[in-house]
Amino acid sequence: MGLSLIILAAGQGTRMQSDLPKVLHPLGGVPMLTHAMASGAAMAPERVAVVCGHGAEQVRVAVAEIDPEAQVVIQAEQLGTGHAVRQAAPVLEGAEGDAVVLYGDTPFIRPETLEAMAEARARGADIVVLGFMAADPGRYGRLVTVEERLLRIVEYKDATQGERAIRLCNSGVIMADAGTLMRLVGALGNANAAGEYYLTDIVALGRAEGLTAEVVLCDEAETMGVNTRAELAAAEAAFQLRKRAEVLEDGVTLTAPETVHFAQDTYIGRDAVVEPYVVFGPGVTVETGAVIRAFSHLEGCHVSRGAVVGPYARLRPGTELSEDVKVGNFVEVKNAQIAEGAKVNHLSYVGDAEIGRDANLGAGTITCNYDGVFKHRTVVGPRAFIGSNTMLVAPVTVGAEAMTASGSVITSDVEAGALAVARSRQVTKPGLAEKMMARLKALKAAKKG
Amino acid sequence: MGLSLIILAAGQGTRMQSDLPKVLHPLGGVPMLTHAMASGAAMAPERVAVVCGHGAEQVRVAVAEIDPEAQVVIQAEQLGTGHAVRQAAPVLEGAEGDAVVLYGDTPFIRPETLEAMAEARARGADIVVLGFMAADPGRYGRLVTVEERLLRIVEYKDATQGERAIRLCNSGVIMADAGTLMRLVGALGNANAAGEYYLTDIVALGRAEGLTAEVVLCDEAETMGVNTRAELAAAEAAFQLRKRAEVLEDGVTLTAPETVHFAQDTYIGRDAVVEPYVVFGPGVTVETGAVIRAFSHLEGCHVSRGAVVGPYARLRPGTELSEDVKVGNFVEVKNAQIAEGAKVNHLSYVGDAEIGRDANLGAGTITCNYDGVFKHRTVVGPRAFIGSNTMLVAPVTVGAEAMTASGSVITSDVEAGALAVARSRQVTKPGLAEKMMARLKALKAAKKG
Amino acid sequence: MGLSLIILAAGQGTRMQSDLPKVLHPLGGVPMLTHAMASGAAMAPERVAVVCGHGAEQVRVAVAEIDPEAQVVIQAEQLGTGHAVRQAAPVLEGAEGDAVVLYGDTPFIRPETLEAMAEARARGADIVVLGFMAADPGRYGRLVTVEERLLRIVEYKDATQGERAIRLCNSGVIMADAGTLMRLVGALGNANAAGEYYLTDIVALGRAEGLTAEVVLCDEAETMGVNTRAELAAAEAAFQLRKRAEVLEDGVTLTAPETVHFAQDTYIGRDAVVEPYVVFGPGVTVETGAVIRAFSHLEGCHVSRGAVVGPYARLRPGTELSEDVKVGNFVEVKNAQIAEGAKVNHLSYVGDAEIGRDANLGAGTITCNYDGVFKHRTVVGPRAFIGSNTMLVAPVTVGAEAMTASGSVITSDVEAGALAVARSRQVTKPGLAEKMMARLKALKAAKKG
Repeated sequence: MGLSLIILAAGQGTRMQSDLPKVLHPLGGVPMLTHAMASGAAMAPERVAVVCGHGAEQVRVAVAEIDPEAQVVIQAEQLGTGHAVRQAAPVLEGAEGDAVVLYGDTPFIRPETLEAMAEARARGADIVVLGFMAADPGRYGRLVTVEERLLRIVEYKDATQGERAIRLCNSGVIMADAGTLMRLVGALGNANAAGEYYLTDIVALGRAEGLTAEVVLCDEAETMGVNTRAELAAAEAAFQLRKRAEVLEDGVTLTAPETVHFAQDTYIGRDAVVEPYVVFGPGVTVETGAVIRAFSHLEGCHVSRGAVVGPYARLRPGTELSEDVKVGNFVEVKNAQIAEGAKVNHLSYVGDAEIGRDANLGAGTITCNYDGVFKHRTVVGPRAFIGSNTMLVAPVTVGAEAMTASGSVITSDVEAGALAVARSRQVTKPGLAEKMMARLKALKAAKKG
Repeated sequence: MGLSLIILAAGQGTRMQSDLPKVLHPLGGVPMLTHAMASGAAMAPERVAVVCGHGAEQVRVAVAEIDPEAQVVIQAEQLGTGHAVRQAAPVLEGAEGDAVVLYGDTPFIRPETLEAMAEARARGADIVVLGFMAADPGRYGRLVTVEERLLRIVEYKDATQGERAIRLCNSGVIMADAGTLMRLVGALGNANAAGEYYLTDIVALGRAEGLTAEVVLCDEAETMGVNTRAELAAAEAAFQLRKRAEVLEDGVTLTAPETVHFAQDTYIGRDAVVEPYVVFGPGVTVETGAVIRAFSHLEGCHVSRGAVVGPYARLRPGTELSEDVKVGNFVEVKNAQIAEGAKVNHLSYVGDAEIGRDANLGAGTITCNYDGVFKHRTVVGPRAFIGSNTMLVAPVTVGAEAMTASGSVITSDVEAGALAVARSRQVTKPGLAEKMMARLKALKAAKKG
Repeated sequence: MGLSLIILAAGQGTRMQSDLPKVLHPLGGVPMLTHAMASGAAMAPERVAVVCGHGAEQVRVAVAEIDPEAQVVIQAEQLGTGHAVRQAAPVLEGAEGDAVVLYGDTPFIRPETLEAMAEARARGADIVVLGFMAADPGRYGRLVTVEERLLRIVEYKDATQGERAIRLCNSGVIMADAGTLMRLVGALGNANAAGEYYLTDIVALGRAEGLTAEVVLCDEAETMGVNTRAELAAAEAAFQLRKRAEVLEDGVTLTAPETVHFAQDTYIGRDAVVEPYVVFGPGVTVETGAVIRAFSHLEGCHVSRGAVVGPYARLRPGTELSEDVKVGNFVEVKNAQIAEGAKVNHLSYVGDAEIGRDANLGAGTITCNYDGVFKHRTVVGPRAFIGSNTMLVAPVTVGAEAMTASGSVITSDVEAGALAVARSRQVTKPGLAEKMMARLKALKAAKKG
């Protein structure tokens, strides 16, 4: 008796002016489609069908990443929403529970709203349509109702003057018994101006055979759709606004919330501080009491309690900072585990590395992890002291409490407690700088003369 | 006859969801409490009492930094505002002038407003209450007045329907003769639903013994209080808005004012330019005509006339830039004096240093100031030319007009006019790169095969 | 019969509180004056006169850069707008077409609006005045009209109560036959309170001799003038809002449009992506499908199709990135051509250089292009592999498929396929680090004890 989810994601999105399929444009750091799928996933569906058309191969790859259980079906021709739902028939074959139709370009439908629709079904409505009171109904389809009963959905262009005065509009989201839904969409005709099969017509079809239809209301903001770049930017702004409010509610300090950009899955613990101008890509978790300083950029990483990141730190995927780690300015960390209390304070690149507890990496430290073909790993032991501008040529290991002299290129392992030096002795030539500079200046004067 | 200041700062701030006492949350880069104390300080008070409760030890430390003359008293139990004021009795012992009660979580009361209250006192009002016309009075206490006279303060829950229609609300700020105030708060009862001693009740007590009470009005924005993270963020936004307007008014160019974040004490001179995305921490002064480029971060530093900072420059506490200094991109400066005309243009760390006039530090210059235990100082003389990627291992001095060769690690002092070199001769091995790369690629192919 | 353009740019702009002439304050990355000149230039004028006064020499230099054909005339004393227009007489000598008066501090008049004025002239109006319906007419001059005919322009202070009720206001922009215009401004008197010659008085003068005057309407936003720093910031915000909308309309993804700052001439191709917090200075073109990541700063550069820039990349003037180039974090590029597929991923400075196809510059690569007097050029061949922290001491050439060892200072050319090494062998001293650290800690303990 599980739920079936049908997600329509076939549209071309011409007005996006893009080669990327519309539902793959990012929203909150993930493909827009992810949001509708996540809302549906909160209902623990038994079957998920994603109906693709334009850019189907790209969409298929994205769907596999979002939900490997979801099945992609192809709508080869775009003949309307009813026709699109029909393509899901193979996936819904034999389904006994309900089915709900969602849209890949309508990212903000809340799980609570789908719950309310399920409750209306449980109360006996055969078809449940999600509606909203539009501030400006414009060209939306209108829901014609008598009390709670939905009589029919009228497209704007077919509506009478009286019907156009209705402010209750159609979101497009529909729920019904899976078998009923597929039977009704199978019976749809396309005798209309556009020659398309409209999903909305199933209300009239159903009522003609004695089924009941009911409207569930949601906030207009939930039904926000994306058709242009400007609407995508507006959707992103709406997402950020909501996420920032949630994060503040959770007891996080955001000095200037409007300057912090989150991804859909960002998690920030209580009493953490996020300064202005921080961008979170997907996959970031920050524990309580950590501080993310201004101008930092984090993706796919974990920051533990008491750690301080930035300003100007970039944490790339695979970064794990343990408690009280410090990553300072102009530092990039990638695929690296940095143990408790270690410090990488200035102008460094730490990639493919494991840094031990309380180790100190001086300014300008670079893990040379790439030889032009392979990537190699660097290991630095606990309490090791890496001098400024040390090149750690991987694969290489520096032992516990070992040191490297500033400016050294470390190509061989350094045992625990040892000092490694790889640099030349300083030679100072008295008067030579003065002489060289005088010569250069004379040359310049000569050139001008 | 000096003024006594009583600042209430004992509340837990439960709705902040934080372990940090509410009044220590930062606003404009300093603890929120600083703002109320600064407003009061403008009245040149003789005595300052800060009443602490939750997190008293942390608050005590902060108060000592803000105003070493202020005395901290402890309210062990939170039994209401009247009870809190009572705790200040030891500090006000024998005070002959007026006393004013302010709130650590109400940061925007202006000195001009306190002046207006003092004038009302001088005109003969025994008790002066600060009120405001609320756009939405909600659950604020109401001020019941006849003309300018204040009859009583009614808590919302005790107010009649008629009293609830009053838009004139209580800010909580009260001024009276110090002795009178302490006598009245000593006489307060707690026979109310909450069992608390309300400061507001002193108006009724005072009037019962023939004293007069008067209302002084302020703008509602001044009375903005902070109870949640969202309200703290809103207060920060209000602070920034006001500060940006002031800075523009002073003749500073802010290309995009809404992207520049100031601290309470930031000073920027006329005709200075601040590009988008600049964050000022506490203690920054910028002279006229200096340019702070985009994405820069400044704290505790001084930038002189004609200097250019950034983009992407980080100036940390103790940085002093003289006239016409240039600090460029991805450069961090800390506790360093940089003399007139010197340049640090790219990817450098200059810490604990003194850089001479017209010196040039090449890209990648690092002062190696930390040996793992001690910090040491670097001195670079006037017109010295530090080659790219020079490590200056402190303590070390490079003389006037001296040079260091690119890539050198300088461990010994370099005398004036000398050239210091510490690097290896280049050896070039024909064909070896090709051979190495071919081997790596073959290895990769073999692994795959 | 070509058009003459008269641009008034003589005002001191006292309220800007600046030593820089008002019309030279930047808007969209270029002097404000550029915008009015560009609007006029769209009409392909035959003669352009810019009337300067305060800071005339600085304005003259700027004008020469914006339009070398434009002629600067000096208004030695500021005796009103009519007097200013009179100074253009030598430039308009013998002009047979129309003349239009624009203002250097009114940057948003659209070319379409000037076209509409020209059409009104073509329909027979002798004098055409640009008006707007003001939301709040305040102290603007009022346009007294009967149907389409303009009777006169009344200054606010001279207006009757009835005239002050008029919402149709004067923008100051005027178009007429050049000869007529110059004759009328020559006839202006200054018998008014300010003792100034008002350009607006030519309407009354003209009508007195039987000429007709007409109003063309524009949007109030076009007439926005700049008199204070706050108004300049508001104009910048208006410019950015319009430019962001245009860029979105062109099919560019701006994740957070409100965080991207464009210059007047920025061009971004379809399906390019610009992440949050990006600043474009003048002279940037970005091709389709390129990605500009967060916190990047670009000026005077070209980014080709498929290239990825940032986060935290700074591209300075003269940078040319070919297709699929990658410039990563904390990298500065200046006056350099980087060929297809080459990578500069981390913490590098590439200046005055030519980087070959598919070359890889390791982290910390620096082109040492400056010897204290001259700048020199670096050439890196195709598929070369520059090891991390290589100093390329220019002038120097690294051949195709050559390599440099990490940490090398390259002072001599490296032939194709060769490996260049310039570094010391690593020496590891067992136990020495432990011993050194123990000594330092003992010293510290002794100091404290």
